Order: sequence, then C-alpha cells, then structure tokens
Amino acid sequence: MTFIQRLTERTQTLQTRLCLGLDPRSDAYSSRDELRQHTLEVLDACAPFVACIKPQFAFYEALGLWGMALLEEVCAAARQHDLPILLDAKRGDIGSTAAAYAQAWLSGNHAGDALTVNPFLGFETLTPFVEAARQHGGAVFVLVKTSNPGQADVQGGGVSEKIAEELTRLGAEEGGGLSSVGAVVGATHPHELAHWRAALPHAPLLLPGLGAQGARAADLTAAFLLDGTGAVVSASRGIQYAQGLDVAAARAAAQCFRDELNAALKLTGQ
Amino acid sequence: MTFIQRLTERTQTLQTRLCLGLDPRSDAYSSRDELRQHTLEVLDACAPFVACIKPQFAFYEALGLWGMALLEEVCAAARQHDLPILLDAKRGDIGSTAAAYAQAWLSGNHAGDALTVNPFLGFETLTPFVEAARQHGGAVFVLVKTSNPGQADVQGGGVSEKIAEELTRLGAEEGGGLSSVGAVVGATHPHELAHWRAALPHAPLLLPGLGAQGARAADLTAAFLLDGTGAVVSASRGIQYAQGLDVAAARAAAQCFRDELNAALKLTGQ
Repeated sequence: MTFIQRLTERTQTLQTRLCLGLDPRSDAYSSRDELRQHTLEVLDACAPFVACIKPQFAFYEALGLWGMALLEEVCAAARQHDLPILLDAKRGDIGSTAAAYAQAWLSGNHAGDALTVNPFLGFETLTPFVEAARQHGGAVFVLVKTSNPGQADVQGGGVSEKIAEELTRLGAEEGGGLSSVGAVVGATHPHELAHWRAALPHAPLLLPGLGAQGARAADLTAAFLLDGTGAVVSASRGIQYAQGLDVAAARAAAQCFRDELNAALKLTGQ
Repeated sequence: MTFIQRLTERTQTLQTRLCLGLDPRSDAYSSRDELRQHTLEVLDACAPFVACIKPQFAFYEALGLWGMALLEEVCAAARQHDLPILLDAKRGDIGSTAAAYAQAWLSGNHAGDALTVNPFLGFETLTPFVEAARQHGGAVFVLVKTSNPGQADVQGGGVSEKIAEELTRLGAEEGGGLSSVGAVVGATHPHELAHWRAALPHAPLLLPGLGAQGARAADLTAAFLLDGTGAVVSASRGIQYAQGLDVAAARAAAQCFRDELNAALKLTGQ
C-alpha cells in the first residue's frame, strides 16, 4: 500500500485526521536521554489518535549526528505502530541534486514515506521527487501557501496559484482520486481552504498550524473531501509540550484535537 | 575573522575566486571507502586553488548517517586548510524551526561557516539565519535567481528583484562594505550579472553553474567588484569528476578554472 492509501485507511478506520508533529526542542530538556525518551514516549502515547507523524528535520539537525540517528529511531518506532511518516524537510534543489535528496528521503529505508518539498527552484525540480514517490509508494507534499504571516512576500502575486496549477497537472497524471502529489496549505488561512480544496482536486492536503500557531479545528472542514478524507491537520508543540513534559497531557491533547476535528466534520456531514 | 573577511582575504592573497563544490555521487564509486578517500583527496589537491569549499548536502544525505558523518569529516579537513566552508543546504522554514536550522548549521561546530538559504517562506523567515550568521561570524547566501532553466516558474514576475531588495535592506544594516548577507545568482545568467551586482551592493555573490552547467569564466566578470572581490564562482562535477576519479585531473581543472577567472578579470582591469 502507498503512503496515501495507508493514510486514507487509517483516517477511516481510526477516525482521525490529526498529524502528530514530533519536534524535540533541545531547550525543553535537561539531557539528551530525557529528550530521546520523552519524544519516543509521546509517539507511543499519541499513536492511537493520529493518522501520521511528521518529524520536523530542523530540530533533529540541531542535535547534530546524534539527532539524525534519533530521527531514524523515531521513524523505526513509527513503523512499529504502522504509522505513516511524513518527513518535514522542505527540501528543494535542481537536477541531479534534487534526485539525490529524493534518493535520501523517498527510497531505501524511507521508501513509502512522504516528504515536504519547497518548489522555489521551479517546477522541473519537482520531477525527481514526484518520480521517486511514485516509484516507491511514497508521496510529496509541496509548499503552496505556508502558515506564517510573511508568506505573501514570495508566495503572493499569484505564485501559490501557479504552484497549485502545476500540482493539479501532476496529480492528474495518476488518474482519478488522491494522488501521490500533495500540497501544504497553512491551517491559519481558514477562509481560503474551500478555494484550495477545489483548486487541488487530486492533492492530499497537509494543514500545519493547529494549536500553537492559532488555527482552530472547527474552521478547517472545508479542506476535507465529502467523505472526510483528503487532508491531515498537524499540531506539534500543542501536543508534545501541552503541559511541559507531561506525556499524559500530550496524549490528552492529541485525543482532544482528534475529537475536535471529528466533531467539526460531523456538523458538516463529512 | 568572519566568513566574508576570510573569503575576501583568501581571494586577494591566493588570487582565486573559485569555490570548490564537493558533491560525492555514490554512483561514481565502487565502495564507500573509495568515495570517502577520493572526496578528501580532491579537497587536499584543490585547496591551494580555491577560495572556499561548498559541500552540497543532498549527496551526503543520500548516503544516510554515514554520509552526514562524512560531511563533518570534510568540514574538519577544510578547517585544517583554513578554507572557508559554504554549506549548500538551501534550508528554509518558519519561526522557531528556522532558528533550529540556523542553530544546526551556523553555530557550534559550524560557527563561522556560511549557509545557503531558501527564501520561499518569506522575509521574516530569513531573520533567524541572518542573526545567527552575525552572532557567530558566519554568513548566509540567499537564493535570488538560481542557475536552472525553470527558475522563472517561481522566481520570475519580479520575485527575484523583491528578494534582492530585502537583501540590500538587510545588508545595509551592517554599514558599508560586504555584509554577511550574500546572494546566490546563477552563473548561467551572464547578461544579468551587472544588474545583480548593482542591485546587491552589500552582498557577496555565489555564482553556481561553471563547467557542467555551461557557464564560462569569461562571461562572469560583471559579478565582481572593481577590486576583484565580492563574488565566488562554484564548480562541482567539472572539478571532482573532471576525468573520472583522477585526482590530478581534478587539481588541474581547479587550477584551470582559477586561471580563467583571473585572466578574465585582468582583461577588465579588476
């Protein structure tokens, strides 16, 4: 099964559209052992409530080689739970360099995983990522409109729309239904979600920004298809550090976000 | 001394504007030992002819944790030669995530190094990178107009110009002369280099695309300041694999690129 098939099945069988961001912040811990143990415990505790996990590479890279080894350990633990893994690395480069990134994160150990991709270098540079995702049952989630206030500096002026058109073209190559070419749209733009859902008919959507960035579950239903699939909403700090390092609080926060998303979708009949 | 001071001094004392891209391609080797040894030998052989080195992260990440350890070994070897290190990672993300990337690659072991940064997420997202570079004597090189044909998909329509304006604003904060906020402009756009040099008065320029991508040293003089500093031109495959894995050929290619750049600048009196 592909990443998208696994994600959709998990959404339906477990009734969850929540993506667990796992971003271990070194300043939250007194030691590396504590960081490692807490991150893995949060993963275990929240697994029943989430559709996938999303490790943010920056926090692992900030921990050096040890951090990159931890990232692989987190991925291995997620595989034990049969949890789809969405690698939030926002990679992007040209030609054979893009192909090397795709080899790194969409093949081998990471075959079947999904990767966030930055489209700044142009549409031709998406090809190696899309090809690797298709070949190995993975997926790419291309940045369309990010969750931060300053995104319009570069993404405004029609740039987000142009990227969405290219993703729709790529997605259509795979026939009907959700494709392996997803899109990242900030949950912080609730009034635009119906527009992006319609503009990206084949794209699974990743919506970051729940919790700490201020997005609310009730405002996000327009991002989903009529059957309640087609999107996942991610929260990171708002789960992992819901109450300091309290793992039970993290678990409760994940359950709460899951329930809020389900309740909102029930109200709209999705 | 800061990255830019070291780069400028090396440009002047060794008379070289060449940046050595070190991108070990796994398919060029029969074993990891061979890849490691060849990459380190190319570095040693070419060091006298280059102003800085530029490891491209994609090729190290494609080698897994072993590759990331090799990247650190390459950096350590460059430090032995007192070679400035320009980390070609094209990182970019928002808020505290951008800060974590900056911590990873512009502080600690990597204090004083430079990092390429992708501005797609907006100008506010450059701040953590610029602050870390200033604090630790490093530099950032922000993508303005990349060397590939498809760059205009996103960078066209005035986007490159808008980014350049922001870099000029940031560079001016540091007073006169070259700032720690550099720009990446493809050497494959020779007719635009005078424009970008004028539009980015405080920015050291990184010009990728020499050799394999088709740019020629003679066409690049407009990217330099009148004193022949202010830019470095990078070549990767064209040096490391000039003739298969022949290290002497790599050394000769580096010397040749260096000489071609110097000859072109001499003709224009720079």
